[in-house]
Amino acid sequence: MQPDFVRIASVIEPDASQRALVADLAKLCDGRATAAPQDRIAYARDLWPKATYFAGLGKVPRPPDAICWPADEAQLGKLVAYARERHIPLIPYGAGSGVCGGAIALTGGVTVDLKRMDKLLEVDRAALRFTCQAGIIGENLERELATHGLSLGHFPSSIYCSTLGGWLAARSAGQCSTKYGKIEDMCASLTAVLGTGEIVKVGGRPARGADLAQLLIGSEGTLGFITQASLYAVPAPAELVYRAVRFRTLESGAEAIRRILRDGLRPAVVRLYDPFDTVIAGKGGKPHFEATDSQHRDSIQVIQERAPLAARLAIRAALGRPAALNHIADLLRECLLVLVFEGDGELASAEDEQALILCRELGGVDLGASPARHWMEQRYAVSYKQSKMFAAGAFADTMEVAATWDRVLPVYRAVRKAVAPLGFIMAHLSHAYVEGCSLYFTFSATAASPEACAERYDALWREALGAAMGAGATVSHHHGIGFWKAARLHEELGSAGVHALQALKRTCDPDGILNPGKLGLGAEAA
Amino acid sequence: MQPDFVRIASVIEPDASQRALVADLAKLCDGRATAAPQDRIAYARDLWPKATYFAGLGKVPRPPDAICWPADEAQLGKLVAYARERHIPLIPYGAGSGVCGGAIALTGGVTVDLKRMDKLLEVDRAALRFTCQAGIIGENLERELATHGLSLGHFPSSIYCSTLGGWLAARSAGQCSTKYGKIEDMCASLTAVLGTGEIVKVGGRPARGADLAQLLIGSEGTLGFITQASLYAVPAPAELVYRAVRFRTLESGAEAIRRILRDGLRPAVVRLYDPFDTVIAGKGGKPHFEATDSQHRDSIQVIQERAPLAARLAIRAALGRPAALNHIADLLRECLLVLVFEGDGELASAEDEQALILCRELGGVDLGASPARHWMEQRYAVSYKQSKMFAAGAFADTMEVAATWDRVLPVYRAVRKAVAPLGFIMAHLSHAYVEGCSLYFTFSATAASPEACAERYDALWREALGAAMGAGATVSHHHGIGFWKAARLHEELGSAGVHALQALKRTCDPDGILNPGKLGLGAEAA
Repeated sequence: MQPDFVRIASVIEPDASQRALVADLAKLCDGRATAAPQDRIAYARDLWPKATYFAGLGKVPRPPDAICWPADEAQLGKLVAYARERHIPLIPYGAGSGVCGGAIALTGGVTVDLKRMDKLLEVDRAALRFTCQAGIIGENLERELATHGLSLGHFPSSIYCSTLGGWLAARSAGQCSTKYGKIEDMCASLTAVLGTGEIVKVGGRPARGADLAQLLIGSEGTLGFITQASLYAVPAPAELVYRAVRFRTLESGAEAIRRILRDGLRPAVVRLYDPFDTVIAGKGGKPHFEATDSQHRDSIQVIQERAPLAARLAIRAALGRPAALNHIADLLRECLLVLVFEGDGELASAEDEQALILCRELGGVDLGASPARHWMEQRYAVSYKQSKMFAAGAFADTMEVAATWDRVLPVYRAVRKAVAPLGFIMAHLSHAYVEGCSLYFTFSATAASPEACAERYDALWREALGAAMGAGATVSHHHGIGFWKAARLHEELGSAGVHALQALKRTCDPDGILNPGKLGLGAEAA
Repeated sequence: MQPDFVRIASVIEPDASQRALVADLAKLCDGRATAAPQDRIAYARDLWPKATYFAGLGKVPRPPDAICWPADEAQLGKLVAYARERHIPLIPYGAGSGVCGGAIALTGGVTVDLKRMDKLLEVDRAALRFTCQAGIIGENLERELATHGLSLGHFPSSIYCSTLGGWLAARSAGQCSTKYGKIEDMCASLTAVLGTGEIVKVGGRPARGADLAQLLIGSEGTLGFITQASLYAVPAPAELVYRAVRFRTLESGAEAIRRILRDGLRPAVVRLYDPFDTVIAGKGGKPHFEATDSQHRDSIQVIQERAPLAARLAIRAALGRPAALNHIADLLRECLLVLVFEGDGELASAEDEQALILCRELGGVDLGASPARHWMEQRYAVSYKQSKMFAAGAFADTMEVAATWDRVLPVYRAVRKAVAPLGFIMAHLSHAYVEGCSLYFTFSATAASPEACAERYDALWREALGAAMGAGATVSHHHGIGFWKAARLHEELGSAGVHALQALKRTCDPDGILNPGKLGLGAEAA
């Protein structure tokens, strides 16, 4: 399923039925509702890159008919009752940073923005637990927790433009997930307004016979609106220990990570960049490497000198020679591993030392703390190059999957091979666990016309995700499913899994009004 | 729902319909089926203590009509098709060590023992993952993994008499769950034969949109037969570091555990015994305390001298004065904390040192390694005193729940207060996590007649579990639900949760033939 795109210029003042709808919504939400064209255009898309690309061409996915901002569960319950009676789709909306189209109103309806529900309700410092409404922006939550000496330990790069509810709805992972887990590991219980209008509180760790919170977590608004949650926090770490290591190959770096985790070490941050990602990541901030011997200085020079070359090559690739560029990546032979250890200073240092021993056994060269500290300083610098590329007639996107250690390198190779003829590709490994890690691919390509670009975008994704899953990857690690990965999710679940999902959909959303089309759950399932 | 008890003597040779049933089952299972009275009596119960108590009085719950042993998924699929046609209940059976009656055939039918499916199919040492059939006994699995240098890290005290499938079905926790997690945290994927007859493979970490493996885990055979699973193993730990600490109060010991985990330390074993559990646990094996100064020697003497007193008092209590005995417990003021750290020797020692600092800050007195090592040596010495107590006209049982740190002591006090008038009670805290821990109560009582004993058993459980949940505990941490805790599970889930569970039941087991009555899911739900 793909959204219909409409010309932005065609989104005009509300018609009579939309005006009536807004009047009703305003009554339900203290007057906070709109069908103004600028609002409908703004809410027509999230950060699904193809929609961003089309926005540059003057088009957006079919917008919602209206947007409203309920204040609490009671208003939301009434809103659901209203929408059920009239079979109006409701699309839950956090901060719109999703990249799989989870917040796009595929079939019209009302986008329900939860950002008015943004209060930190309770903090229990002894229990290391807090209760918060779902509409809070991540960075605001961290700042409020910091005043209590706490942290959630959840730092997605979208932290400035994503909400707690969005994290839970899409099974988000933060940059420190190796130590603190994904959002589903942090959630004690949650409150939701189901598609039946029922307000339920579910969950609570340790888990029981059937952990229903785990069904709503990751349901992307297809079963209910997550309105608040209790989560476990951690004390703000006493100390951070940074470490960067250079490897000749992705293979040796990946093996080092596997051994680090296998030996029980728990760095908060683990990121291993493949040669191109190393050069491009290294280029950005001109890190001051701590060169302690001549060999280190040499390797740093190599990285720094190659950066401009890579930049030139990247531009050339964007002009249509991806295969050549992908081959050059193999020659660079520089993979940067970034590690950050957190907690009690002595223990973190002991972990760091032990990790460095393991890295050296595999040929890793210590680059000191600076490259890792540099990464930390830039941790939220989400690239704004995408729009510039789109403006230049090229496109870029990222694809994240996960695999167990035995499949990580086969997935990496399979995706590179599949994408090589179509675009330029680089990758890093991150979110590492004892059992495996996430693979995060960045690709870019160009084509002769916008239509050809859109076709190539679809083809590239089809090939890349097909190759990844064919080599053993799961459909997603932390970006969620939206509509964009829905067909692949169903492949992964199999018929019994899809039936179970549809049964839950029928139970929680009997009229199929909630976020239709997402996770491949349409009105037909309900 | 409680089972009907029948006289053991009334379980006689199979009648014509049972003979016909066994003949059919034999065709489906290579001749491995029986309806012989001794087999039906043996499979009439699991380790639900009330059934053990009644066994001593010559009664068992209504037995299954037959027992069979399928060899593989294909036979199981045919068995399900056969049972669906005839509306015959099928009761999945591992090794029968459950204590909530999950394997009791409440309404007759066929008990399906999975122990023929006990092969370790594949070990991937690099991926730290293995695939094994569900019917394997835990100890056998550990021994096979040890030949590969691996361990599952899952050590329930039932390890000699429980199966991998049983662990998954009931969300088991091992003694090292603080470091390695519960069984649901270890499971990569699993294969199940659903009540539809479908053979499905679900799951795979990291989790996706809806993790269906997590629905089958903990479903206690109500949705399908778990037939095999892939799980993550760990390398056999290089070193173990033992530590025991004495606290004056349960409060200070609990606070020490909370801080140890909050500070990022991850002992494998964490057990804190309340005064009576300390004395009775300490009594069993006469541990050689490492007395390094006179204060320690004194405290050891106190523990050892008090043990016989406690034994005498326990007997008196069993004769009917529980309230007095429960008061004495408050005067003992000796709580033993057992810690075991595992992994790289240096790191484990660093964790141990850090933990000891935290304990001392809270008044903890170092008792050295011996009491912890002693605990480890006795780790599977499941008490056989239960049967002796039953024979003496008294009864004993254990009840485990879990709570977050803010509710741990309120739950402890509420349960003690509720049980005090009815029986003697002691407890330990174990399976500790950053967010809370499990509370494990042991109670014993007596009454004038078997009927009065049975009534008191029910009353004691009603009061104890009601008090625990009223004070904020979850219904179970690792013993599961069976039929015994089913009503309380429904209380905890609430109506929306129960509806979701029933929807899954209807989808996976449309005829309601799988383990009816367990988790409160009967034929009426299907």
